[in-house]
Amino acid sequence: MIRAGVFGAGGRVGKLLIEDLHNENEISLGAVYVRNELNFSIDPSVLVTNDMATLLKGSDVIIDFSLPEATQLLLEQAIEHPTPLVIGTTGMDVHQMNLLKSASESMPILYATNMSLGVALLNKLVHMAAKTLEGFDIEIVEQHHRHKKDAPSGTALTLAHSAAAGRNLDLDAVRVSGRNGNIGERTKDEIAVMALRGGDIVGRHTVGFYNDGEFVELHHTATSRNTFSKGAIRAAKWLVGKPNGLYSIQDCLELA
Amino acid sequence: MIRAGVFGAGGRVGKLLIEDLHNENEISLGAVYVRNELNFSIDPSVLVTNDMATLLKGSDVIIDFSLPEATQLLLEQAIEHPTPLVIGTTGMDVHQMNLLKSASESMPILYATNMSLGVALLNKLVHMAAKTLEGFDIEIVEQHHRHKKDAPSGTALTLAHSAAAGRNLDLDAVRVSGRNGNIGERTKDEIAVMALRGGDIVGRHTVGFYNDGEFVELHHTATSRNTFSKGAIRAAKWLVGKPNGLYSIQDCLELA
Amino acid sequence: MIRAGVFGAGGRVGKLLIEDLHNENEISLGAVYVRNELNFSIDPSVLVTNDMATLLKGSDVIIDFSLPEATQLLLEQAIEHPTPLVIGTTGMDVHQMNLLKSASESMPILYATNMSLGVALLNKLVHMAAKTLEGFDIEIVEQHHRHKKDAPSGTALTLAHSAAAGRNLDLDAVRVSGRNGNIGERTKDEIAVMALRGGDIVGRHTVGFYNDGEFVELHHTATSRNTFSKGAIRAAKWLVGKPNGLYSIQDCLELA
Amino acid sequence: MIRAGVFGAGGRVGKLLIEDLHNENEISLGAVYVRNELNFSIDPSVLVTNDMATLLKGSDVIIDFSLPEATQLLLEQAIEHPTPLVIGTTGMDVHQMNLLKSASESMPILYATNMSLGVALLNKLVHMAAKTLEGFDIEIVEQHHRHKKDAPSGTALTLAHSAAAGRNLDLDAVRVSGRNGNIGERTKDEIAVMALRGGDIVGRHTVGFYNDGEFVELHHTATSRNTFSKGAIRAAKWLVGKPNGLYSIQDCLELA
Repeated sequence: MIRAGVFGAGGRVGKLLIEDLHNENEISLGAVYVRNELNFSIDPSVLVTNDMATLLKGSDVIIDFSLPEATQLLLEQAIEHPTPLVIGTTGMDVHQMNLLKSASESMPILYATNMSLGVALLNKLVHMAAKTLEGFDIEIVEQHHRHKKDAPSGTALTLAHSAAAGRNLDLDAVRVSGRNGNIGERTKDEIAVMALRGGDIVGRHTVGFYNDGEFVELHHTATSRNTFSKGAIRAAKWLVGKPNGLYSIQDCLELA
Repeated sequence: MIRAGVFGAGGRVGKLLIEDLHNENEISLGAVYVRNELNFSIDPSVLVTNDMATLLKGSDVIIDFSLPEATQLLLEQAIEHPTPLVIGTTGMDVHQMNLLKSASESMPILYATNMSLGVALLNKLVHMAAKTLEGFDIEIVEQHHRHKKDAPSGTALTLAHSAAAGRNLDLDAVRVSGRNGNIGERTKDEIAVMALRGGDIVGRHTVGFYNDGEFVELHHTATSRNTFSKGAIRAAKWLVGKPNGLYSIQDCLELA
Repeated sequence: MIRAGVFGAGGRVGKLLIEDLHNENEISLGAVYVRNELNFSIDPSVLVTNDMATLLKGSDVIIDFSLPEATQLLLEQAIEHPTPLVIGTTGMDVHQMNLLKSASESMPILYATNMSLGVALLNKLVHMAAKTLEGFDIEIVEQHHRHKKDAPSGTALTLAHSAAAGRNLDLDAVRVSGRNGNIGERTKDEIAVMALRGGDIVGRHTVGFYNDGEFVELHHTATSRNTFSKGAIRAAKWLVGKPNGLYSIQDCLELA
Repeated sequence: MIRAGVFGAGGRVGKLLIEDLHNENEISLGAVYVRNELNFSIDPSVLVTNDMATLLKGSDVIIDFSLPEATQLLLEQAIEHPTPLVIGTTGMDVHQMNLLKSASESMPILYATNMSLGVALLNKLVHMAAKTLEGFDIEIVEQHHRHKKDAPSGTALTLAHSAAAGRNLDLDAVRVSGRNGNIGERTKDEIAVMALRGGDIVGRHTVGFYNDGEFVELHHTATSRNTFSKGAIRAAKWLVGKPNGLYSIQDCLELA
């Protein structure tokens, strides 16, 4: 049984991790790091600590969904006590990313800002479809809740890059983000990435490939933030025993 | 049995009308107007003529999908021989529309540039939904083939007007046709009308209403131009016996 | 400002009600009924009581998502202290329903087992579409999480009844729940209600109308249980000031 | 420039082939085989013949969408005059299939009963997704026009086989074709293949993968029979120059 340590246990994803690890067979919650007192109940067999070294030594793998500064401290400690790390922290700066890369020489680290298995797979499928379905027009639609401030979503841009790469196109040169007026016929290479907003949509992405006679649409919906927790747990199981190095969520899919 | 006369029998929709009238019970093809020789086979019981007066006198209702100039001539003749008219000709100018209006004082005329029953119904449903689902964010997506030169489609704009009317909003003030960059949170009243292009899509329209906890999407797909023929036949059956006047496809739906 | 009283404040929907009332303008949380101590923090201006009469007298309208026995007690007390009631409790027996009906002679009561505004609207739209789109084939697809034990969902059956009613059909005579083998051509009147299961889907329902040349699809997705809370709050605002009587969520929509 | 010969030029797909070859750059119509007189106009540079040997000798590749008996005769002649063959004829019996196999020892033959590129790709993607997204529930929905007599479609069954193969499951043991009543929770391995019927839908197929927190849906729509013609032309271009042998449409995709 793999013992997982959760860093950032008080955060939104951290709480889900503790819940979800409960339902696993090959991996279980071994330790949690908490800065202050614990405001949630936990199995007494689990090690609860506010010391990073204790967390690192007591875990076969650490899952971290915290903040950049906290992840930085974790990485510094991990270099002393190498342990496989799954890191889902967003907003890391260049210095922190360099630290992460050099730390990955001493232990296996999987880093991903979107741990969703479905999105990771979709990126792969979109690349294949763009390459295979030559001559099909590519259009992408993403939708998020009404409070999201930027458009299109990072995930939509990543999908668009996967599509453009499958066609040897430079996304910046072909991306369209709206259409209005007498725009003329669609050009062969353009890739629209349209952003819808509304309600409390966690995230919907559709990449469509349209030709005379047929079309293919590849779609992903996130129904809750659980998707990040589930993805991280799968990544953690996969990471244990891997050689030192920096891995992505795609690596963990081991697509045939 | 209602005898339908088809004007513009050689056009794309005209040919479909002849085919589709064959499968009807209450209405059948009585007469066709053709300018030159007939390059398609037709039942010998059907009156074939190149004289408009003969067509008008031999029909209980005329269906016309021709060109503005031809429709103008038909209207001028119809004033002499009043007969119910279903007109689906697009691109009429102001003079021709005025002629149509004055002709409708002498006979019932149903005029529509999109005879689709589904689209007519959707407009009604969208208006109701916009009114009822207050606080829901409204977003519209339309998709057409790669050769379409303008955006958004006329049908999408009509749907957007129906939605705006349900909220007492001025569409021009709230319509959004693209999103890109740091646009900030969605404003309460904005209505996005996004245009996708690709392949040979005849027409897809989705009007979505998004709130915390739920969303509703009302969708229409045109799979072929048959939709115009079917709508015109239904309109023709409905129009016979109606008082003189100008009608829309909505009138013919007789929604409860 | 309408003062809402929440009965069943400790339940799943009760907690959401307290949260959601916080963001309202015309209505606010005035009182909550709790049987035991309160295990959640609440604004000190809110009346917290374990006495039903106090709750009833301190509220302009009560929202109740509790259990049948508790609702029965509330109704008995309300007959003494008439107050508008919005009741979303499920599983009421015949005796309890009769009590509810007789109580509604003394106060306005809105009762609904699915408070979703979207579903209420969809039922109305489906009825209209079934009636208007004569000759269109009707097919319904519902999807719920993998743990749901019955099929199709109650909401799907209600939608199917709305569709059948629009066609003057008896649903039991025309409903199809699967297709396999050499089944022959689709019959004109059959209505398929197909149930998909998987993942953690809260609820998706699509009612489609298919004809030669076009189709219309009317869709609802529940993204969270918030939909019940939001619907109940809207119902509460609507119910205050109405004459005594029993109302449904449809009444509250005030569809044109 | 590759010279394509069309066998079965009078059939529905044959006519589309002649049209579609007109818009190609690397391949063009070189010859057509017609049994009787030609009832459609054709470029005078194209060889028109009712002799199979002439067709075979005058073409770099033959595309055949005819009937089993005609394909049999073509194969017998082709053994004498080996030429790459793209065969889309359906309904071949065992004897005819054996003939096809032995003929493929003398020339490259690509055989497929569904030439759609999109469907071929989808089969590949579904297999990958089923394998990668372990623990996700798989549900398939197909939809066809109201006249289709069998369910589910051959394409849906092929997709279901691809999904089952990705999980090492026997489709016959896990396939579900309807759900009704108190069926209990969904079992882990079941794969529903639900058939919708209605209107004039050419073909829609969706394979969904559902998990807690997210789902992926892979979708294909055929908008017209052109899809078969386009697929065959691509197959023809690919087949020229290949070693003798029997190929599928999947081979021609050359997926990375």
